[in-house]
Amino acid sequence: NIEHNYVRSCQASRHYSTSSSEDLDKVRTLLQLCVDRYFVLPGQTNTELFQLGMSCSYGPLGMELRRNLLDQWWHSVTRSTAQVFGINTLSSSKDTATGGRGQLRIVETENVKRLLEQQELSKEQLIQNIQSLIQRSTSLRTNFLQGALEQFVPSLELVNRKLPFGLAETGLCFHPSDGSGCPAEVTQTSLVWFCSPRTSSQWLDHWTRHRLKWWRKFALSPSDFSSSEVPEEEREEAASRGVRIIYSFPWGPEPLETLWSRGNTELLQTHKGVRSKLQCRDSRKSVPHVVSVTGNMDRGVLAFLSNSLQHLKKEDSKQKLLQRKVLKLHPVLAPVKVALDIGRGATVELRQVCEGLLQEFMEAKISAWPGYLETLPMSMEQLNAKYDEMGVLFTVVISENTLESGLLQVRSRDTTIKETKHISEIKNFLSRYISAADNS
Amino acid sequence: NIEHNYVRSCQASRHYSTSSSEDLDKVRTLLQLCVDRYFVLPGQTNTELFQLGMSCSYGPLGMELRRNLLDQWWHSVTRSTAQVFGINTLSSSKDTATGGRGQLRIVETENVKRLLEQQELSKEQLIQNIQSLIQRSTSLRTNFLQGALEQFVPSLELVNRKLPFGLAETGLCFHPSDGSGCPAEVTQTSLVWFCSPRTSSQWLDHWTRHRLKWWRKFALSPSDFSSSEVPEEEREEAASRGVRIIYSFPWGPEPLETLWSRGNTELLQTHKGVRSKLQCRDSRKSVPHVVSVTGNMDRGVLAFLSNSLQHLKKEDSKQKLLQRKVLKLHPVLAPVKVALDIGRGATVELRQVCEGLLQEFMEAKISAWPGYLETLPMSMEQLNAKYDEMGVLFTVVISENTLESGLLQVRSRDTTIKETKHISEIKNFLSRYISAADNS
Repeated sequence: NIEHNYVRSCQASRHYSTSSSEDLDKVRTLLQLCVDRYFVLPGQTNTELFQLGMSCSYGPLGMELRRNLLDQWWHSVTRSTAQVFGINTLSSSKDTATGGRGQLRIVETENVKRLLEQQELSKEQLIQNIQSLIQRSTSLRTNFLQGALEQFVPSLELVNRKLPFGLAETGLCFHPSDGSGCPAEVTQTSLVWFCSPRTSSQWLDHWTRHRLKWWRKFALSPSDFSSSEVPEEEREEAASRGVRIIYSFPWGPEPLETLWSRGNTELLQTHKGVRSKLQCRDSRKSVPHVVSVTGNMDRGVLAFLSNSLQHLKKEDSKQKLLQRKVLKLHPVLAPVKVALDIGRGATVELRQVCEGLLQEFMEAKISAWPGYLETLPMSMEQLNAKYDEMGVLFTVVISENTLESGLLQVRSRDTTIKETKHISEIKNFLSRYISAADNS
Repeated sequence: NIEHNYVRSCQASRHYSTSSSEDLDKVRTLLQLCVDRYFVLPGQTNTELFQLGMSCSYGPLGMELRRNLLDQWWHSVTRSTAQVFGINTLSSSKDTATGGRGQLRIVETENVKRLLEQQELSKEQLIQNIQSLIQRSTSLRTNFLQGALEQFVPSLELVNRKLPFGLAETGLCFHPSDGSGCPAEVTQTSLVWFCSPRTSSQWLDHWTRHRLKWWRKFALSPSDFSSSEVPEEEREEAASRGVRIIYSFPWGPEPLETLWSRGNTELLQTHKGVRSKLQCRDSRKSVPHVVSVTGNMDRGVLAFLSNSLQHLKKEDSKQKLLQRKVLKLHPVLAPVKVALDIGRGATVELRQVCEGLLQEFMEAKISAWPGYLETLPMSMEQLNAKYDEMGVLFTVVISENTLESGLLQVRSRDTTIKETKHISEIKNFLSRYISAADNS
């Protein structure tokens, strides 16, 4: 029974061993659901980017999910200790810092055009001029490391030259294409941690535990997330040790976040070897070591979508076997917390109630889906199926009865149980539910 | 009395008329404060970018201020009506959509190098190859309009082909340099609003009111923010009407957000004139009109910093005239809500209390400054002056007394009044203060 195996494999992914055609099915189902339910915008190229762990065109739900994920990352890193400061550096810069090794350059077409129009130039002069144009152009960042290394010295004042401390940044980075001619954009997170040389390996372990715990906190199957030491032959040049946080996708493991213990070579290079500028108190004149933690939050979105998709079977009243797909996203990650719908009754009045409630939710920063605006006829079962695939935590139905007694129906995604609640208590109920999940 | 005039001009900026040397002073003071207080990282080029309303390297406070501003923008636009959806599009794309007019191209140095090394090419062939390389390269977006126009059709399903609705996006856009060779990055916000042709002018007015009200909500001197119709000769090609939200900087007015009523030409172009794909219900077969609202949040940060800086004078107990600079940022924008410091007493124990309190603040998402880690000797007056310049709302001082009785001192930035509160009530006091300011 393939279906049964599938469900089992979702529940106990530690014993993951399904056939590859089944895996392909899983991937296809997942990507189709992401497109159908407004996580990812349609288009072959777009879903391919998404599957490769690159930034793509997100629909409203994907955009909100990534936003929630980035917020959580930010809070977990800047709240984990008092001494992590957020910074913002430019995504492009003159290439002096990277020693002219920047792979992606921003070129202004006007300048190229002007150059090519200079008819008096020989071929050699033209080549030279183009080389110098590229040399002088700004290059796009591939990560946040360089920016943080540059900001180390101005940041020292913030901490009174006391180690350890970190600089955090999130945003877009750009990666050269593998020949396709289309550079990739990736939404990255970065913590660059400065510490004394003798503690750097301990800090690498600390941050590895911290990061793995964070990823698992939001997982339905935490064991799909794991960490593993980077083998020596795959290490970055400057690094003495590296660890990857890995997610087991149906198509194989992929890194979500990578931690490196990088020593101080790059920090010294960035500041032209002026050791005196880099020295901190308590560090006996040594130059701080750097631990970098770099995450890919586009792949993070994909990992949590993949991790939270459950196929459930149940029998209906006529003993017909129903299949249900539910996106059991963690409450703090779920892009829509509550959907608002109307049952039978006077439409105009019911809509007014919905609008008031929607306003209330929005003021309490509970993201709500205005299902009552939907005008396509849909049965309650169809609606629930749709919301389950969107990962909506609760569905609230306003009906004639609400107008009379103030009572409404609340259905939970996770239990599928419908409860009756009074309209005055629904906002607090949702707020409490979400913040309980946040603090657990 | 120049100083006095300055204070008056801050309070009644409607009657703004100060000398230009005084204005220069103001600007210098503002920029120096931004660097000294961790809003903007040091460096001549960096502060110049900042003053020009471009993205720059922000320090922790500037980064957090921009973050708060973007959050507020996002909530105000997506919460203003049920029908604004957030999307995310790529910042670079193959240039077919813009008809090859993209000014900024991403070029891979490897590809250029390979091209220049082909020695058998004639000069003409080389020129052709370079032209075709540029043609095939991806171009960086200058705004979010094109992305939203492309997403119009897939978004129609979300709203059951019903107008009006909007697509919102925020992030980095890139602008060609004015000859400097260094393209500018700007943190932009974008709402692209689709509505029926006959309502587009009304919607332009609606969104103008909405935006102006939003800017003024966070202002100390609301009248520094104004709106003005764009004169016909300055209109964008496609636009029939335009409005700018303007801030009066000491050096003159600059636009913060621009609204255009753009008709449907660009929407039709984007979808290759296939009208049937674009038609909505209730719109009698007409193609929707577009109203675009584009903001510059880097300049927004500068505007609020400029707007909230107050020079105050007061006499101390010895009748000495003291000058106080206070950054009276709106409570929801202020990057640091509370600073935690220690007075006299057993340092180790006091620090432990601070750490517990800091944790409590962070869990409640109240951004706190760990001033107790500061080891430079500083008087309470110096500390308060520093925090005022950082725009910190409250300073909490833990002392010997706190260990005994649980009482601590809370100083308000805006009133400078010190109150005694019990340690158990401080978190709720701050939460209530901030959320009251948010909802007012």
